[in-house]
Amino acid sequence: MHDLYFEDFNVGQRFVSARRTVSAEEIAAFAQAYDPNPFHLDDAPARAAGYPGIIASGFHMLSLSFRLFFDLKLWETAIMPSPGMDEVRWLKPLLPGQTIWIEAEVVEVIPSKSKPDRGILRFRHDTFAEPGEKLMTVDCMHRLRRRAPG
Amino acid sequence: MHDLYFEDFNVGQRFVSARRTVSAEEIAAFAQAYDPNPFHLDDAPARAAGYPGIIASGFHMLSLSFRLFFDLKLWETAIMPSPGMDEVRWLKPLLPGQTIWIEAEVVEVIPSKSKPDRGILRFRHDTFAEPGEKLMTVDCMHRLRRRAPG
Repeated sequence: MHDLYFEDFNVGQRFVSARRTVSAEEIAAFAQAYDPNPFHLDDAPARAAGYPGIIASGFHMLSLSFRLFFDLKLWETAIMPSPGMDEVRWLKPLLPGQTIWIEAEVVEVIPSKSKPDRGILRFRHDTFAEPGEKLMTVDCMHRLRRRAPG
Repeated sequence: MHDLYFEDFNVGQRFVSARRTVSAEEIAAFAQAYDPNPFHLDDAPARAAGYPGIIASGFHMLSLSFRLFFDLKLWETAIMPSPGMDEVRWLKPLLPGQTIWIEAEVVEVIPSKSKPDRGILRFRHDTFAEPGEKLMTVDCMHRLRRRAPG
């Protein structure tokens, strides 16, 4: 655990996650639960739509990407629930067998005006698949406590 | 199946989903896989953070809400992978035992300039918990085929 707080971050800081290979089974299981579109579940409709086989739900790609970010373990005690995300863009499909990682960069540091014990960090999270294709980008807000009220 | 196409939608159309009660077990299972923050997994850290017990991951709320939208079955053959979402806002926590639904409204109809066989619908999706508390809002893009090229 790095156990970082709000004041430990500056615009331009970058973090690169570990890598993870995504299986057809987990793609289909997530889709079955949350996004049972035929092109997320079965190869035939995915091929008819122009893909080599099933493609992951965008919500799955988003959730997997967040887990890779989480596993950087940048903060432990400082984190509070997030107010939201902006500009989620699914640029390319995530296919079974692909190995993905994320690169995250601090793009804005916003101290709270009303609560001196916290602030919001805006991170851009980019998801890549080997060898280096960008699959997704999202602007995530993370609300963190300060170590010492500002 | 309604089997609607791009040209069947107009700004202002509204759709209301079925309702679904969310269990503590599914909240914890999703968080374990994708967002293992202590306040999504265990009541003690969630209470220390000021909540009555565990709260759902925002990614889980987003995925559950999309499934409620999916189950409206507005389209079957027309749907294509989405380019993205904007302005995801987590307004209130989703707690175990809450019963949620979504209300979706068409906010923009965007014919493709380069491909006459398709277009993008922007929907605002609002997630509510009984009796009527708004938990989340998101601006979702849905890419659909036209029944007849425009």
